[in-house]
Amino acid sequence: MDKILVIGTVAFDTIQTPFGKIEKALGGSATYASYSASFFSKPNILSIVGNDFPKEYIELLKKRQINLDGLQVSGKTFFWEGFYEFDMNEAKTKKTELNSLADFKLKMPDSYKNINYVFLANIDPELQLETLNQMKKPKFVVMDTMNFWITSKRKSLMDLIKKVDVLLLNDGEARQLFSTISLVKAAKSALSLGPKAVIIKKGEHGALLFTKDTHFSAPGYPLEEIKDPTGCGDCFGGAFIGYLAKTNDLSEANMRRAVVYGSVVASFNAEDFSLNRLKTLTMGEIERRYEEFKEIREF
Amino acid sequence: MDKILVIGTVAFDTIQTPFGKIEKALGGSATYASYSASFFSKPNILSIVGNDFPKEYIELLKKRQINLDGLQVSGKTFFWEGFYEFDMNEAKTKKTELNSLADFKLKMPDSYKNINYVFLANIDPELQLETLNQMKKPKFVVMDTMNFWITSKRKSLMDLIKKVDVLLLNDGEARQLFSTISLVKAAKSALSLGPKAVIIKKGEHGALLFTKDTHFSAPGYPLEEIKDPTGCGDCFGGAFIGYLAKTNDLSEANMRRAVVYGSVVASFNAEDFSLNRLKTLTMGEIERRYEEFKEIREF
Repeated sequence: MDKILVIGTVAFDTIQTPFGKIEKALGGSATYASYSASFFSKPNILSIVGNDFPKEYIELLKKRQINLDGLQVSGKTFFWEGFYEFDMNEAKTKKTELNSLADFKLKMPDSYKNINYVFLANIDPELQLETLNQMKKPKFVVMDTMNFWITSKRKSLMDLIKKVDVLLLNDGEARQLFSTISLVKAAKSALSLGPKAVIIKKGEHGALLFTKDTHFSAPGYPLEEIKDPTGCGDCFGGAFIGYLAKTNDLSEANMRRAVVYGSVVASFNAEDFSLNRLKTLTMGEIERRYEEFKEIREF
Repeated sequence: MDKILVIGTVAFDTIQTPFGKIEKALGGSATYASYSASFFSKPNILSIVGNDFPKEYIELLKKRQINLDGLQVSGKTFFWEGFYEFDMNEAKTKKTELNSLADFKLKMPDSYKNINYVFLANIDPELQLETLNQMKKPKFVVMDTMNFWITSKRKSLMDLIKKVDVLLLNDGEARQLFSTISLVKAAKSALSLGPKAVIIKKGEHGALLFTKDTHFSAPGYPLEEIKDPTGCGDCFGGAFIGYLAKTNDLSEANMRRAVVYGSVVASFNAEDFSLNRLKTLTMGEIERRYEEFKEIREF
């Protein structure tokens, strides 16, 4: 089992969906990603929180063997408030307070620099780039992003895409980034920049994995009710790289399995607010749902 | 191999997509459905065209062994003009001239009444109901519909759904008909009305098959370019029931295979305007793409 470095945000989230509301709950891309990765491997967080960050959240992460040596503490914790409308497909932002994230200067613990598996979860692409540049010899680098960075830091994002092994993004972002309605064309454009694989997350419609010569389509899990989709993309990425770090097999066939594990953990995450569902999730449940994914697509 | 009755429209279509335009081309739900079904079984059309309907179109259908004894000729052929915008997901109607379809009175040839497999392709639900009532002992009835009938003839549609074995509809229609964003809930509502199975067509995202206890997710085929999606839903339905009539096996496992054959033929249809791609399609191409569908979802 290999370790994983996860850079991203650790945040307070206030979220409203048609199914309820939660205030100042634990959130952030690095939180969801590392928590999900912890079912498979040993994540190491690189991020920042404020002095107001509750000890119980720290304990929650430590209990999952998540290393927090790279978690700085300063000022106030990054805060995001958003809501989902009826269709639950896209988060609408009500308020963003960057707080300590605004002055976040990377301080990479020496123990992190030799880590083989790197997940650049959603955060400013310049921080993602800087992180990558400090790694000694990363074996496998996965990056995620979001529409905000596609609009505001397109150049840095494009530079970064050229240096990673796998680009993760959702269908709307893929269409936006490569100016095409066709996901197949978007994926080909992405692959032409350098990554060995591109994964397009499609929410309830599943996920697509593209490599130069192959195409894999993972089904969506038939959840009757989605309570809160926040963090599902981060969970997907965390479980994806977590499974690869655990198995240390980067074949296309194993990446397919990793995509399904990513889908499994993301589907659980949508069942409740914040990390509430992940907190009670067991490896047995993950394996059972993985088997269900097999049955769903069998013909 | 069993015969199939197909009731639906035979039409002239004028269609504009971002990839071109075609004028007064052969179209209609019964046309696409029976043409697709003809790869697997012997379709019998119940419909009406005008005196202006070209002999070459009749010949085209006859060459595929499609029985036209139930094709009436009177007045002018039903005409539809529509266009697709950039996202190609939904046809926008520019003009509809019902013409002879407005006075269409069912005249069912006696030879049709004993047919076992019935496809009620998209047409006025009252005509679908009347057709069904004239069948002696249909073994398997599949129905399709469209948003227009959900709005204008909801009551007839609901009555009909109670009498069929399989309800086919696309994701937007499922959400509209059962007033829910959740496709799982929509499918459960549909099943509670009587059908043994519900199939939700999701275009590029594939198709879902729901029965009381099972769920099947067929992947979408990664077409780089969709030239004209007109008729894809009809092709899906035609190939679906065609394969079932051919194999005469109504198990859930075989329905899954039929869903994939439906997806295969629909994906070919989107590659060109009108029936242009279907005209050159071979059973060998269908079987090869069926195998591709297996590879796409393997993990």
